[in-house]
Amino acid sequence: MERIKPRTLSGFMELLPQPQMQFEQVLEILRRTYALYGFTPLDTPLLESSEILLAKGGGETEKQIYRFSKGDSDLSLRFDLTVPLAKYVAMHYGELSFPFRRYQIGKVYRGERAQRGRFREFYQADIDIIGDGTLDISNEAEIPSIIYRAFTELGLDRFKIRVNNRKLLNGFFELLGLKDVSAGIMRAIDKLDKIGPQKVREILVEDEGVAAQLADEILAFISSTDKLGALENYAGKNELFDEGAQQLRTVASYMTEYGIPEDYFEIDFTIARGLDYYTGTVYETIMLDHPEIGSICSGGRYDHLAEYYIDKPLPGVGISIGVTRLFYVLGEQGYLNAQAPTAPADVLVLPMAADGRAAAQLATYLRSRGIRTQVYSEQKKFKAKMSYADKLSIPFAAILGEDEISAHRVSLKDMASGQQQLLTQEEAADVILSAVAEKSSEKPIKETK
Amino acid sequence: MERIKPRTLSGFMELLPQPQMQFEQVLEILRRTYALYGFTPLDTPLLESSEILLAKGGGETEKQIYRFSKGDSDLSLRFDLTVPLAKYVAMHYGELSFPFRRYQIGKVYRGERAQRGRFREFYQADIDIIGDGTLDISNEAEIPSIIYRAFTELGLDRFKIRVNNRKLLNGFFELLGLKDVSAGIMRAIDKLDKIGPQKVREILVEDEGVAAQLADEILAFISSTDKLGALENYAGKNELFDEGAQQLRTVASYMTEYGIPEDYFEIDFTIARGLDYYTGTVYETIMLDHPEIGSICSGGRYDHLAEYYIDKPLPGVGISIGVTRLFYVLGEQGYLNAQAPTAPADVLVLPMAADGRAAAQLATYLRSRGIRTQVYSEQKKFKAKMSYADKLSIPFAAILGEDEISAHRVSLKDMASGQQQLLTQEEAADVILSAVAEKSSEKPIKETK
Repeated sequence: MERIKPRTLSGFMELLPQPQMQFEQVLEILRRTYALYGFTPLDTPLLESSEILLAKGGGETEKQIYRFSKGDSDLSLRFDLTVPLAKYVAMHYGELSFPFRRYQIGKVYRGERAQRGRFREFYQADIDIIGDGTLDISNEAEIPSIIYRAFTELGLDRFKIRVNNRKLLNGFFELLGLKDVSAGIMRAIDKLDKIGPQKVREILVEDEGVAAQLADEILAFISSTDKLGALENYAGKNELFDEGAQQLRTVASYMTEYGIPEDYFEIDFTIARGLDYYTGTVYETIMLDHPEIGSICSGGRYDHLAEYYIDKPLPGVGISIGVTRLFYVLGEQGYLNAQAPTAPADVLVLPMAADGRAAAQLATYLRSRGIRTQVYSEQKKFKAKMSYADKLSIPFAAILGEDEISAHRVSLKDMASGQQQLLTQEEAADVILSAVAEKSSEKPIKETK
Repeated sequence: MERIKPRTLSGFMELLPQPQMQFEQVLEILRRTYALYGFTPLDTPLLESSEILLAKGGGETEKQIYRFSKGDSDLSLRFDLTVPLAKYVAMHYGELSFPFRRYQIGKVYRGERAQRGRFREFYQADIDIIGDGTLDISNEAEIPSIIYRAFTELGLDRFKIRVNNRKLLNGFFELLGLKDVSAGIMRAIDKLDKIGPQKVREILVEDEGVAAQLADEILAFISSTDKLGALENYAGKNELFDEGAQQLRTVASYMTEYGIPEDYFEIDFTIARGLDYYTGTVYETIMLDHPEIGSICSGGRYDHLAEYYIDKPLPGVGISIGVTRLFYVLGEQGYLNAQAPTAPADVLVLPMAADGRAAAQLATYLRSRGIRTQVYSEQKKFKAKMSYADKLSIPFAAILGEDEISAHRVSLKDMASGQQQLLTQEEAADVILSAVAEKSSEKPIKETK
C-alpha cells in the first residue's frame, strides 16, 4: 500500500498526552474562574460569513484571515472572539439581559508567517461585560480581579497587572494642544517597552511633529514615579483628563475591594494599547521575571461593541488571554509543574488470573468511588505491565492474581515508593482517594526563580 | 453608518445562554465519564492538510468536505475525529504507550445539504482504545459500559445498547456459501430497521442474487428470539462464525461485570453497521421511546486504524456520540431538564448604597467560598435589578443597603420563595451553598414518558 507521511500543519499546536493534560487543566481552571465571577459560557461557530467577520474591514486582519468559498457562500474562519460576540449580541439583543457577561474559550485562526512560538490556530480565553447604553465604572475594576484570580489559580505568582486610562492620556495630549496627533502619540507610547524612550521621542518629534519640549513633557509625565502627584499637577486643566484621573482612582480603589493585593497591580501611564477601539480603562499583565514576553493578558473598556451590526450603544469591558501562546512560553521557561498530575488514570488494574472478570468487577467498584481506573487486559509479561503504569505516571497498580481473588483482596502497589499492601477493595479505594486528594493541590504552573 | 445584518450560517448551532449552559453540562459529564475510564484527552487541529484527511479517499466524504487553498497549501476542515486520531497515532507511534486510550470532544465539519436537525458544524465525542498489534477482547465489553455510564449520568434512562459481531455475520454468510456477496448483504441488513424485512429480502434476492430460500434463512437467523439457540444451531460449521459467537458470549459476560444492568443491553444479530471498517464487535444505542431517531451512539472493533500512514497493525475499538444532534433531538422531545441549573451565577449582589465598595467586598468573600457571584452595579431601579435576577434564574439576591452595611449584615432574598433574611456574610454563604448542593443532583436530561 502507498502510504502518506503523517504530519500536522506548521503553526498548529498538537500536544502529546502528558502536556495535553496540563493544557486541559489550564482551560478547566479558566472556565471555573470565569464561572465564579458570574460569566456565562458561549460557543459560537468557528466559521462565519466573511461579510460578517470583515464588517469592520482593515488591513492586517484581512491578509491573515482563512477565507474561502463553498458553493456560493463566502466563508471565513474567525480570527478572534470579539467580532463573533458583537454579532451574537446584535443578533440576540432582544433575548439577552444586560449587563451581559459572557466568557468564551475557543480556537481562532490567523495565517501569520510561521515562526517559532507563533501559532496559526490558537486558543483565546475571553471575558466581556456588555452594557445596554451604559456600564458602571466598577466593572472596570472587577475585570482585573478575575485576571488576578485566574493567574493565581493557575500557579502564577510573579506577575503584575498594569492599569491606565485612555481618557487620561487623550486629555493630557489635548491639554498640551496635541489632540490632532493623539492617535499617533498613543501608538508610539505603546512601543515604549520595546524600543525605549529615546526612540519614542524620535517618533514623536520626527513622525508626529511634536515639539521637542512637549515630547519631553509627555515622556516625563508617563514615566512619573509619583503618579498621584502627576495627576494633581495637571488637575483642572482639561475635562477629559480630570474624568480619566477620577476613573483611574475609582478603579484602583475598587480593585482592592475586589481582592487584588497591592503588589499585583500598578497604575502605569505608559500603557496605551495600540487599538483605537479602547476608550477608558486599559490593562496589560506582565510576568515580572520575563517582561520580554510582553503582555500575557490585555484588554480594556470600549464604547461600541457592535456598531457594524446594530444601531445601539453597547459599551463593554473585557480581556483576552492567548492561552496557546502562554502555555508555549511557560513551557519554554520550564514553568510547567512536573508535580501536577498528568496520568490518564489514578490506578491501573492488572488482571493476573486467566479470567479477567474479577478485574472488571474491581474496576467497576473503583469507578463507582470516583477513581479514574484503567484495566490492562493485554497478555503481556508482568514487567511490561508495570512499565506501562510507569510510563503513564499512573500512581497505583492494583494486582489481581488467583491468590488475591480467592482471598477477596487486592495487592495495591504504590508506584513511587514501590510499597505493596494486601487490601480489601474498599481499603484500596480509600488509599487511592487520599493520594489523589493530596496531589490535587498541585497547580499546572510553578514558577522557578 | 451602513450596517450589516447580523446572522449565523445555516446548519451551525449557536445557542442562547440558557441552553448553552445545558450543553456545557452535557460536555462536562462526557469529559468526566471518559476520564473515569482512564482515557486521556486529545485536541488535534481542526485544519489539516487535505492529503492527510483524504488519504482513504472516497465518495460522500469528499463531496461534503470544506476544502480550500491558502498560499500553496491545500487544506481541509476535519470531517470526523477518527482520521485525525489515525494521523496522530501514526505520527507519534514511538512516543505513545499502548493500549492507547484517548477521548476527544470537538467540532467537525460536513457541508451537507441544510435541513432541519442536520448540522454542518457539530460536536463529536469519541473514545477509542488502540492496541499495538493486538487488543484483548475484554476492551470490547468495556466500551459499552462507558456508554451506559455516560448516558445514565446525563439523565437518560430509556435506552438500550445493541451488540453484535461482524465475524459472526460474515461467518454465517460464508457457511451459506454467500461469502462473495457478504458486503452487500451486510449493507442490506443495516437498513432493516428503516425499510423492514420485506424490502431487505427483495434487495437480497434481486440486487445481490441470493437464492430466495437463503434470503429467508438469513432473515430468520438475524431475527431469532432465542439467540443462544440460534448460535448453537450453526455451531461447528464455520470457523469464523464460531469465533464470532465465542467473542459475543465473552463480551456479553464481561459487560455484566463492567456494571451494565441486563435491561440496558441486548445481543441483536441485525446490527451490521454499514462500514467495511469494522471487523468484530459492533454497537448501536437506541432510545426505547424514540427508535425513529436511530442510533445515538455507535461504534465497534476495527483492525487497521492507521494503515494509510504507517506499516503497523493498529487494531482498536471505539464509539462516537454526535453530541450536537443528540442535544438537538433531546430538545425537540422536551427532554432537557428545566430543573437543571442554568443560571450564570448562584447569587446576585445588589449594591443599594451610593458607594458600591461593600458590595465588591461581599462578592470577593462569596467567591472565596466557591460561590458563583455576580454584582449588579448599574444605576437602575430596585425592580429592574430584581427582574434581572429573575430573567437569568439566579436563585438568590444579596441586598446591601446603608442599613445592612452599618449592621455588618446582608439581606439575602430567595428568589423562588420570595423569603428574605438578614444574615452575616458567613451565614448567607452557608445558605447559598446548601441550596447549590441540593440543585446539583439535577441532570441535564429528564425523559418524560
